[in-house]
Amino acid sequence: MFNRKMLRLGEERSAIRELYEYGLARKKIVGEENVFDFSIGNPSAPPPACLTETLRRLIDEVPPELLHGYTSAPGAYDVREAVANYIRTQFGVPMSATLVYMTCGASASLMCTFQAILSEGEGEEVLVPAPFFPEYSVFVAQAGGVLVPVPTDARFHLDLAAIARAITPKTRVVLLNSPNNPTGAVYAKEELAALGQLLRKASAERRSPIFLVADEPYRELTYGEAPVYPMSVYENTVVCYSFSKSMTLAGERIGYVAVSPRCEGADELFSAVCGAGRALGFVCAPALFQKTVKHCLGAPAPVEVYRANRDLLYASLSDMGYTCSVPEGAFYLFMQALEPDARAFCERAKAFELLLVPSDSFGVGGYVRISYCVARSVIERSLPAFRALMESYRGARKN
Amino acid sequence: MFNRKMLRLGEERSAIRELYEYGLARKKIVGEENVFDFSIGNPSAPPPACLTETLRRLIDEVPPELLHGYTSAPGAYDVREAVANYIRTQFGVPMSATLVYMTCGASASLMCTFQAILSEGEGEEVLVPAPFFPEYSVFVAQAGGVLVPVPTDARFHLDLAAIARAITPKTRVVLLNSPNNPTGAVYAKEELAALGQLLRKASAERRSPIFLVADEPYRELTYGEAPVYPMSVYENTVVCYSFSKSMTLAGERIGYVAVSPRCEGADELFSAVCGAGRALGFVCAPALFQKTVKHCLGAPAPVEVYRANRDLLYASLSDMGYTCSVPEGAFYLFMQALEPDARAFCERAKAFELLLVPSDSFGVGGYVRISYCVARSVIERSLPAFRALMESYRGARKN
Repeated sequence: MFNRKMLRLGEERSAIRELYEYGLARKKIVGEENVFDFSIGNPSAPPPACLTETLRRLIDEVPPELLHGYTSAPGAYDVREAVANYIRTQFGVPMSATLVYMTCGASASLMCTFQAILSEGEGEEVLVPAPFFPEYSVFVAQAGGVLVPVPTDARFHLDLAAIARAITPKTRVVLLNSPNNPTGAVYAKEELAALGQLLRKASAERRSPIFLVADEPYRELTYGEAPVYPMSVYENTVVCYSFSKSMTLAGERIGYVAVSPRCEGADELFSAVCGAGRALGFVCAPALFQKTVKHCLGAPAPVEVYRANRDLLYASLSDMGYTCSVPEGAFYLFMQALEPDARAFCERAKAFELLLVPSDSFGVGGYVRISYCVARSVIERSLPAFRALMESYRGARKN
Repeated sequence: MFNRKMLRLGEERSAIRELYEYGLARKKIVGEENVFDFSIGNPSAPPPACLTETLRRLIDEVPPELLHGYTSAPGAYDVREAVANYIRTQFGVPMSATLVYMTCGASASLMCTFQAILSEGEGEEVLVPAPFFPEYSVFVAQAGGVLVPVPTDARFHLDLAAIARAITPKTRVVLLNSPNNPTGAVYAKEELAALGQLLRKASAERRSPIFLVADEPYRELTYGEAPVYPMSVYENTVVCYSFSKSMTLAGERIGYVAVSPRCEGADELFSAVCGAGRALGFVCAPALFQKTVKHCLGAPAPVEVYRANRDLLYASLSDMGYTCSVPEGAFYLFMQALEPDARAFCERAKAFELLLVPSDSFGVGGYVRISYCVARSVIERSLPAFRALMESYRGARKN
């Protein structure tokens, strides 16, 4: 009676959201402090002071009917100018306000971009290094495309040979997420430059561009040197950004799409993004937060809070005998499950009130994602549970 | 190279948005006070005091990382409970929090609902009384359906015989918008009850329900008695609501979908709405405004401001010799153009700095929509321009 795909998506929910809801329910039963919810990437560190100060100031100074009214569909022009200026000065690439489209967050950025580039019923392909954020499958399918996972190397960095092999005449997009959810990998300048070369060559051979879509909500959350800006290594690039993680406002739905002026057909692509925003029902990005982020561009992200969490969690879990990759950015730790079936491992972890996301929905088996954007005390209190979980496997092996 | 439909939607823009952008540019040239922009429904009356008070209080009292974090995908449960409670007590119909889905505004509400009900490639039909809000065509097409305009009577009220004739085996939805954009019509209890009867009978004959989707952002803006709640006259009803107009926060993107518990397959329909929100990239409705509207449900809308505007504009234009229907609600005045081609009339109006939207994109010819949700001074200053526009036609006739 209803749309079957939507019904299925609504009934399954994402594995992450499912676990998050389980956690909310479980906390009511055993107490908030006894559940170690590492399920969702809901930032816990206070946002930059600028955020709350700007919110207060705007509410005090701007008449509400102006503050909360519609902006132009692609965003208030002064906000788009500020974002373009930030991209130019921060990353040293050309950018124009006319190619910045303010969105309702990263998912909206991605949906508008996919819907703009992909045409339905053509089987157009979006390559993505695996593991990858599970909603990518949903968004690409909704936009009429096909998501094609490509393996990564042992450190979850790009396997260029695998990407080269995966390119077909149907490939329209390579989708990158660095810093990466779920692995914490941050792609190095050299590997991105090599990817740029590869895509440039492939595009020339096919005489039609392959677009690099960079999903960058974690850009400011890195623990080493600042990651390279993808537009500086490849011309046909679209950056999908969200302020959710850097400014701790994941619930406010504010981000942008920036189309590189060097992109083939940049103006047309931008128009198609606008058309997609219109067709999908976005109207405009939330007005108050458009105006707020304008004044907070470049405000320092709370990266030190997450670095301290990472250091504690990585060292503790490694000490206990777990095998983890060192997160270079974002706030996820990717850890090997203690049995081949990650789902079974996560089910067992639940008995210790540990909420971990199995890697299966990220496109690989045998791992779990641990979101460590939680209060430090949650990590500290969770350590005995991780130890007990490990013991439960050792005990099982002895038997 | 890009999605053609999206490119077309992005390049055309909506006639309303196009005119709004023209107005912004024109104001820079001839001065803000010399352009009479009646194009867009961007509310100008101050919001209820509760809105700004609640925003300030939440920002002061709730830690920002909690205030601005993700909510559950269908909305924070306490907010959904408050909305359900409001619907129950205000309108005397059953409603449950589990059937309330918080959205990023009315367009999002409609897109999630259409996407949930309609299946692609089936040619499923959505009947809508004409004239109608032009983006309905975009949303229904994007969701894979076909919008079927149905004529209204001379007062732009429902023509039940026309609706009965328009129902086919492919009809899935009747879409109502009362108070109406663009005509200001508010459907009476009797005509809605008769529509309920008609749909009940048609659904029984086909053995599958026709859904009534009520787009209700103007519910609180009426100048006569309170409009009947559609769920009280027909069981298979979904209400798509937005706080944009009643609380003057059109740019903040906050509203909801409420599925009647009496609806056939209500729980499945709700799941499909959730699935659609997920697939379209909405994630959750803006968190701060979810929490804010919770505390402002039922706050008095600034209807008296718009009533004064309506009275002045209707009386003045009628006096000048224009033919207008009396708006019963919303903040639009629907007026006959002075020549058969409404587009040509609106082009001529531009020479007098009057920005009026031709009715063609609303699905009927020969009229214009005048959005009077502007400062009273704009209406006052515009009257000589309306008079001059009328004179210009009289002069032409004399020649």
